[in-house]
Amino acid sequence: MEPTAKGMDTYTIGKFAVVGGGSTYTPELLDGFIAHQDEIRVETISLYDIHPQRLAIVGGLAQRMFRRAELATRIELHQELAPALEGSSFVLSQIRVGLMAARIIDEKIPLSHGVLGQETVGAGGLANALRTIPESLRIAEEVGRHAPDAWFLNFTNPSSIITQALIQHGGLGKVVGLCNVPINSQRSLANLLGVGEQKLWLDWIGLNHLGWIRDVLVDGRSRISEVLDLLQKSPDEEAHSRFPFELGLFESLQMVPTYYLRYYYTTKQTIQEVLSAGKTRGEVVAEIENELLTRYKDPHLDVKPPELNQRGGALYSEAAFRLMFSLLSDRRDVQILIVRNDGAIPELPADASVEIPCVVGAAGPVPIARGKLPPSTRPLFEAVKTSESLCIEAAVQGSRRLARLSMLANPLVPGYEAAESITDELLQAHRVYLPQFFEKGSV
Amino acid sequence: MEPTAKGMDTYTIGKFAVVGGGSTYTPELLDGFIAHQDEIRVETISLYDIHPQRLAIVGGLAQRMFRRAELATRIELHQELAPALEGSSFVLSQIRVGLMAARIIDEKIPLSHGVLGQETVGAGGLANALRTIPESLRIAEEVGRHAPDAWFLNFTNPSSIITQALIQHGGLGKVVGLCNVPINSQRSLANLLGVGEQKLWLDWIGLNHLGWIRDVLVDGRSRISEVLDLLQKSPDEEAHSRFPFELGLFESLQMVPTYYLRYYYTTKQTIQEVLSAGKTRGEVVAEIENELLTRYKDPHLDVKPPELNQRGGALYSEAAFRLMFSLLSDRRDVQILIVRNDGAIPELPADASVEIPCVVGAAGPVPIARGKLPPSTRPLFEAVKTSESLCIEAAVQGSRRLARLSMLANPLVPGYEAAESITDELLQAHRVYLPQFFEKGSV
Amino acid sequence: MEPTAKGMDTYTIGKFAVVGGGSTYTPELLDGFIAHQDEIRVETISLYDIHPQRLAIVGGLAQRMFRRAELATRIELHQELAPALEGSSFVLSQIRVGLMAARIIDEKIPLSHGVLGQETVGAGGLANALRTIPESLRIAEEVGRHAPDAWFLNFTNPSSIITQALIQHGGLGKVVGLCNVPINSQRSLANLLGVGEQKLWLDWIGLNHLGWIRDVLVDGRSRISEVLDLLQKSPDEEAHSRFPFELGLFESLQMVPTYYLRYYYTTKQTIQEVLSAGKTRGEVVAEIENELLTRYKDPHLDVKPPELNQRGGALYSEAAFRLMFSLLSDRRDVQILIVRNDGAIPELPADASVEIPCVVGAAGPVPIARGKLPPSTRPLFEAVKTSESLCIEAAVQGSRRLARLSMLANPLVPGYEAAESITDELLQAHRVYLPQFFEKGSV
Amino acid sequence: MEPTAKGMDTYTIGKFAVVGGGSTYTPELLDGFIAHQDEIRVETISLYDIHPQRLAIVGGLAQRMFRRAELATRIELHQELAPALEGSSFVLSQIRVGLMAARIIDEKIPLSHGVLGQETVGAGGLANALRTIPESLRIAEEVGRHAPDAWFLNFTNPSSIITQALIQHGGLGKVVGLCNVPINSQRSLANLLGVGEQKLWLDWIGLNHLGWIRDVLVDGRSRISEVLDLLQKSPDEEAHSRFPFELGLFESLQMVPTYYLRYYYTTKQTIQEVLSAGKTRGEVVAEIENELLTRYKDPHLDVKPPELNQRGGALYSEAAFRLMFSLLSDRRDVQILIVRNDGAIPELPADASVEIPCVVGAAGPVPIARGKLPPSTRPLFEAVKTSESLCIEAAVQGSRRLARLSMLANPLVPGYEAAESITDELLQAHRVYLPQFFEKGSV
Repeated sequence: MEPTAKGMDTYTIGKFAVVGGGSTYTPELLDGFIAHQDEIRVETISLYDIHPQRLAIVGGLAQRMFRRAELATRIELHQELAPALEGSSFVLSQIRVGLMAARIIDEKIPLSHGVLGQETVGAGGLANALRTIPESLRIAEEVGRHAPDAWFLNFTNPSSIITQALIQHGGLGKVVGLCNVPINSQRSLANLLGVGEQKLWLDWIGLNHLGWIRDVLVDGRSRISEVLDLLQKSPDEEAHSRFPFELGLFESLQMVPTYYLRYYYTTKQTIQEVLSAGKTRGEVVAEIENELLTRYKDPHLDVKPPELNQRGGALYSEAAFRLMFSLLSDRRDVQILIVRNDGAIPELPADASVEIPCVVGAAGPVPIARGKLPPSTRPLFEAVKTSESLCIEAAVQGSRRLARLSMLANPLVPGYEAAESITDELLQAHRVYLPQFFEKGSV
Repeated sequence: MEPTAKGMDTYTIGKFAVVGGGSTYTPELLDGFIAHQDEIRVETISLYDIHPQRLAIVGGLAQRMFRRAELATRIELHQELAPALEGSSFVLSQIRVGLMAARIIDEKIPLSHGVLGQETVGAGGLANALRTIPESLRIAEEVGRHAPDAWFLNFTNPSSIITQALIQHGGLGKVVGLCNVPINSQRSLANLLGVGEQKLWLDWIGLNHLGWIRDVLVDGRSRISEVLDLLQKSPDEEAHSRFPFELGLFESLQMVPTYYLRYYYTTKQTIQEVLSAGKTRGEVVAEIENELLTRYKDPHLDVKPPELNQRGGALYSEAAFRLMFSLLSDRRDVQILIVRNDGAIPELPADASVEIPCVVGAAGPVPIARGKLPPSTRPLFEAVKTSESLCIEAAVQGSRRLARLSMLANPLVPGYEAAESITDELLQAHRVYLPQFFEKGSV
Repeated sequence: MEPTAKGMDTYTIGKFAVVGGGSTYTPELLDGFIAHQDEIRVETISLYDIHPQRLAIVGGLAQRMFRRAELATRIELHQELAPALEGSSFVLSQIRVGLMAARIIDEKIPLSHGVLGQETVGAGGLANALRTIPESLRIAEEVGRHAPDAWFLNFTNPSSIITQALIQHGGLGKVVGLCNVPINSQRSLANLLGVGEQKLWLDWIGLNHLGWIRDVLVDGRSRISEVLDLLQKSPDEEAHSRFPFELGLFESLQMVPTYYLRYYYTTKQTIQEVLSAGKTRGEVVAEIENELLTRYKDPHLDVKPPELNQRGGALYSEAAFRLMFSLLSDRRDVQILIVRNDGAIPELPADASVEIPCVVGAAGPVPIARGKLPPSTRPLFEAVKTSESLCIEAAVQGSRRLARLSMLANPLVPGYEAAESITDELLQAHRVYLPQFFEKGSV
Repeated sequence: MEPTAKGMDTYTIGKFAVVGGGSTYTPELLDGFIAHQDEIRVETISLYDIHPQRLAIVGGLAQRMFRRAELATRIELHQELAPALEGSSFVLSQIRVGLMAARIIDEKIPLSHGVLGQETVGAGGLANALRTIPESLRIAEEVGRHAPDAWFLNFTNPSSIITQALIQHGGLGKVVGLCNVPINSQRSLANLLGVGEQKLWLDWIGLNHLGWIRDVLVDGRSRISEVLDLLQKSPDEEAHSRFPFELGLFESLQMVPTYYLRYYYTTKQTIQEVLSAGKTRGEVVAEIENELLTRYKDPHLDVKPPELNQRGGALYSEAAFRLMFSLLSDRRDVQILIVRNDGAIPELPADASVEIPCVVGAAGPVPIARGKLPPSTRPLFEAVKTSESLCIEAAVQGSRRLARLSMLANPLVPGYEAAESITDELLQAHRVYLPQFFEKGSV
């Protein structure tokens, strides 16, 4: 948390539910509760998961962590959703339908057509969304029934699509999507400029995993030129790996493209990288997860193990705590979140999800008006958002036709033939999770 | 200032220029500098006025006030604009072209046609704007030349129109319009609910002097129903006089209309009030001003005299200091200001001025996206903004035709005949201030 | 019909249903079928009315007229809707809920508050709409059931609101609103310029009974200046009475306002006229209708009697036949009709009804893009359309609150007190037609 | 011309100027004047070209053709623009800056990066535009000076971009872009359905060379399903080659994509085709042109030679004559043209060029409102239009940065590296035509 929070009140959460509580990420979150105990106390953490083993392992570690921290927080483990949610004031969703096995399929099928497969962007992200939307909507329905006043924090990927599906079809008013890209970008650029993180104001426009930083302000003064220059010349490795783009692109855009834009701006190279890596990221993560779960089982482990950092969720709990603290304290600070657009980006529909700076008070985030999009960003905004919106309709209606159009609209899918083949193969491969596409009469 | 500012740094302003420094309001502002000396120190205050006597009187009082406060602030008096502005980091404009005499004409000519005359709304506001736009643009030009990095704070009425003229034609990037209605409304509703002023979040949408409060949130919870109820039943006189509307209107709107909407919602009564008062507000204020100036002359007076409160600018300096503090400290809190719309209200043009909640950091206010307008507010938004925009074009082009259309568009001007007669009579009466309408070839 | 239709095919309509067939206007329509027999033959005309006497009288005249014309058209009289509609390919609606008695109330209650009462505009128009919307939607539902492929031609007033209610809530795709103001305006201006009616191209923008002619083109050349000049100087009485505005208004607008705008531009005079007339227009028409019905009863009458012209529907059947001929022949000519906006006027919602030039082929009218509205027209467009849209929601939901807001939004209703009183008195007076407003729980 | 034009008046054009009159296409146009002599007579045809030999050859053939047709039309040949334009009432532009040699470069440089090079779409189209915009604006300026009332008909490719550049920067009000794709598509689909061409109504939305047919109406009835079916099953070769798409795409879109969309929907195949052809289209056309010019030289040739058909401009003069006839006769029929958008497609800027159905009277084409875009078309609309708009700004400002962004925005250019390299190589290769990019200070 930022320094200004010091000396403020401690807020109490009665019950905090984690859907997908058996995730290997969970200890990161638990560690956050321990680290932020002066700001937020939680009485009960309810971990829900459909995988009993994972749940038991992570649940055990959780109990040991809180015991060591001498906190009275009660840990509940649930395989049924209703009791897990009942009476919660926060629900955090971090599910992965089909686990790593399904993710690896999302990666490999597109790759077999020479097309990028990835968990959140391109064909892989769409496939992931098709599986995850119905389950997310089922969770939202249960939240509406058992914890109607709860804040629903969505970390489930692809967060852009899942958050929009929840906004459009979830029937809940209090939904926010979260991602650690903005907070990491902010920290990285602050380090690059050698100023405190809170001094930076990022003029960020984007969808989740499709963001541009139009300007970097320090004390109200634009530092974008200096940032673009440093991103070329500085020896800061972290910054280079976070913004892996070449000089010409920075100069042409006059903005800082954020990490995931590499899939669009340097498509060939990223496909080449994946192909030459031998393993997909899913395959690597599957191994890491196995090691982590083994580590978590150790009855002597009672802190978040350092190996978790390899998993890739840096500052994920930090982002969650910043948000929760502002919701609890009516803080009204500015955070970059995934929310209902509501005209903030006038070119996009009001009910689209966007990732933009919001003022966060106790009534939730309110987006800041961003004005007209820079022309150079419009094609990607439009293509990705159209692809996402078609994907949601495809999932809700179980329409193969719309799934193909969603794939065709995606900028990483080159042409109709690829769109059709990849869609059909992915639907077939994930058939067990996608019954709505195989019902009689679906088109 | 709010409690959270305590313990923060003191910021220094090198030079602060007041255009219209001979105004009887000025001591309110000076008093603010004295009261807020822990947050903001000013080295030089430069008072500019074209009226030498007023300037001398107010300047004398200023010096006595700062002397008594034991502050080293230097007071400069100027009748030339360039040196007054040179090197300022803030310029506050509070001019009145033609002084009270012109205002009284703005009130009386419409009234002679049975139409409301008032300083900021209706026919009188438009006439005031026609006189004030060219002068405001001249000032902006000089600011661009002599204090190009300064913040331009506009208190000059009608602030909605003047701020928009500055945005569209002033050539300055750093312009903010200010008014004390939002801060007074906030305080009044906080008192009504018995909560601290900073606890309230007003979901305010509006143009200056045309605002609605869609919701009143306390700790994130809607209290609008309770507010509407209290506005009927509470014995709080201040609240009743600030929101002088009847139950049916509150119930129909399901919003709190702010003060100046009485001219639109209860037109007949407000005209009747003015007529039965015998004197116009301008005539009353002229007397108050004379008394104040006499009082200011008193060489023993070295504080803001209590009589100034009758003048009607309650919390005006408070609003200015809140804004300045956030601009200086990069505070990023939410304030209701008059700014470039930029899509915040999607139904209005991007370059229209609107009065809405903004996040205020050192780079200036950024408006919060307000989403679609409630249908019941659209006709007034549209009519008043169209009238304002036509007025600006009329003033800039010196076009009688556009001035008439501006008048015709105004919801307080009933029909074309009134629009034509009132326009023509006002142009004639203020001919000396409006040479552009009387040049050969103007239409 | 225009000369180009000569020599074209004759089209046959199997069944043509008239809802409100007992209207005194009906003989005008019948006369149209006789006059246009070379273009359009109708096998059966089905007259439906809930008033048996009127139906019998008009039905008798109809039979005599067709007999005299030696046409084999069969005339059916119905008091049940289903059989009247069954199998029709055109349904023309011209109902008046509550007949002249209700209209007179619509006129008198507003007038008692000093506010204009009129059949289509202002408070009277809204009251008329509140009564007529539910009945129109009931008819639409029956058309959907019994004549699903029929074109629904709406002449029922207020046509702007009724057509929009049908578009938004009627469930039919083939709805067109019609009015005789555009065709009469076209003819009048053609006469004024001394050119053939078909030579004129009117650049018309509007809602029904709220239209402006931005330009008058002849052979592609703008003649608007000449028209504005002639509207002042020409001795053409018909033109003056059709465009009863003064020079200043023409010069300010640089457009031709159409007839019904007089209620907005010269409000005071029109109220004065109505008050000094002693009788309302409804009272006058009630007398004319009685005389007409007496005349229609005459068993020797077998043509449209000349007295019908006093009733005020000049060229009404002409407009209907032009439309029908283009729908039948896929003609693709341009006609000014009341249709779904669909972006033609970008400032208004897509599903609003607008009155604009459309290309009319067999698939129905498609509006021409009109570009941005002239600023001077925006306040009236916005206020009237908002008032209409709120009226439709009020009628559909039975919401007194929305009815009051609709009244408040209307530019002819000055302030909230008048809006509330007039709404409440009209709802009470028409209580028998408005049960939805008096059900338990309605707000 | 369509049958309805029969028996109508003959219209006379005083002077008709062809800019790029030495084009091998010109005899097609001349043949049109001969074929349509009953509708349109032209007194003088002024051929302007900077290439004296071509001008002499084509001019000679022109004189022989008119002599043979026994028409008194005077043929003028000009190498100076001013006298060529002076007093014209129509100016047709069909220039090609750098002739085929430049086109071949436009094709080959992108291909060397594995990216499609083509005269109007993708990287090649942008390069062509960069060369052609300044020249087109120079011509427009001269038209404004020497033929200010003329209609400017643009056939110059890429017509989408050139027409928009003329709209935004050309200073002329009477500009229309033309292409033969719509007229050929209409004819092809009419043949496919076996109905007369004039019976079809194509619900066409598009930019030039980026069009979709949302529906095909015959007598007001949708025939789209039948068309999609026939496009698979019919033996009609012409239709297959005009709409070369597979079943899945038709079924997914539920629209008919027009020819040039193959570059986007089947990118890989089209690149493969070009590569395997050995020669680019430009190289083929260069040979055809040489043969044609040789043929044109033949002093015995006095008709349009059949070989011209290989050149690829089928129905090009037919489209021009339809347009001219409607402009001359105030016909008000519907034609698919390239015009200022003006809200017809609400998602695109008002001053963008779009290719849509327009009503064409003597005052010029007015677009029909198309409503919201189908989601599946939005990414291509947005990407191509953004690319085009950036290209225009790049050409006008001489900005390499904007040229790269234009290339990057184009859906056929994969990623930044390709965008940068291709841009830089094309600018270098065409350096002689692009001085504005090589001036000091250009960025």
